[in-house]
Amino acid sequence: MIGRLNHVGVAVPSIEAAKKTYRDLYGVPESAITETRELPAQGVKFAFVNIANSQIELIEPLGENSPIAKFIEKNPRGGQHHICFEVQDIYVARDEMVVRGARVLNEPRIGAHGTPIIFIDPKNSDGVLIELMETPKDAHG
Amino acid sequence: MIGRLNHVGVAVPSIEAAKKTYRDLYGVPESAITETRELPAQGVKFAFVNIANSQIELIEPLGENSPIAKFIEKNPRGGQHHICFEVQDIYVARDEMVVRGARVLNEPRIGAHGTPIIFIDPKNSDGVLIELMETPKDAHG
Repeated sequence: MIGRLNHVGVAVPSIEAAKKTYRDLYGVPESAITETRELPAQGVKFAFVNIANSQIELIEPLGENSPIAKFIEKNPRGGQHHICFEVQDIYVARDEMVVRGARVLNEPRIGAHGTPIIFIDPKNSDGVLIELMETPKDAHG
Repeated sequence: MIGRLNHVGVAVPSIEAAKKTYRDLYGVPESAITETRELPAQGVKFAFVNIANSQIELIEPLGENSPIAKFIEKNPRGGQHHICFEVQDIYVARDEMVVRGARVLNEPRIGAHGTPIIFIDPKNSDGVLIELMETPKDAHG
């Protein structure tokens, strides 16, 4: 049912510092790193580092009630936060997850790629927070 | 410099249970999940879950001195452990990492895909443990 590994989410205290890591240490060209955007409703800033076949999503807390503030408190340097797989239809995926006994953490909402996403309780996935996102209609997203 | 995102490493207390998660909850066909193998010298068991464009590497501690035993102690359900990017030549990559001021954690050694790998100190990569592996000569690996 899951399709492509769309991205790995990495929570960091500073997106600008993390961009520097991928650019200066790992040699990712500046043109492959997106500008930083804000999603105030979800309490995060984000940017993508485009890798040959996938993406790293850098996320930084935004505002006092950011859902990733606690993660950064526990992991002050940052760390891997979630893995995102694509699905064809988010509502079908949501219903399948429920039928299969998983706890879906949110109603489908529009994510950083402009398509609806859900998160699955890490307790259902060996401690890993998994995001499911509907495949963007323009293919790669 | 880095190429494909070869895999995301997920440390788990039980590979067999984690295989069930990807098969029964996320619908990955049995044929896309490799058999479990042991790397006693590195203190791990591992198996791969093949995703359309990448892989999840499931790793489980093997033996008393497993380097991931502490990780499982801290994260008893399991969790995201490392991200692996491909590089063309591991020795060139190792030398570049050193020149750029990163701490390389090991001499190149043969990893689960049969090609040499190194790990970079998470302190150099925003708290993320990054593995660099030489691209397998048979392309996809």
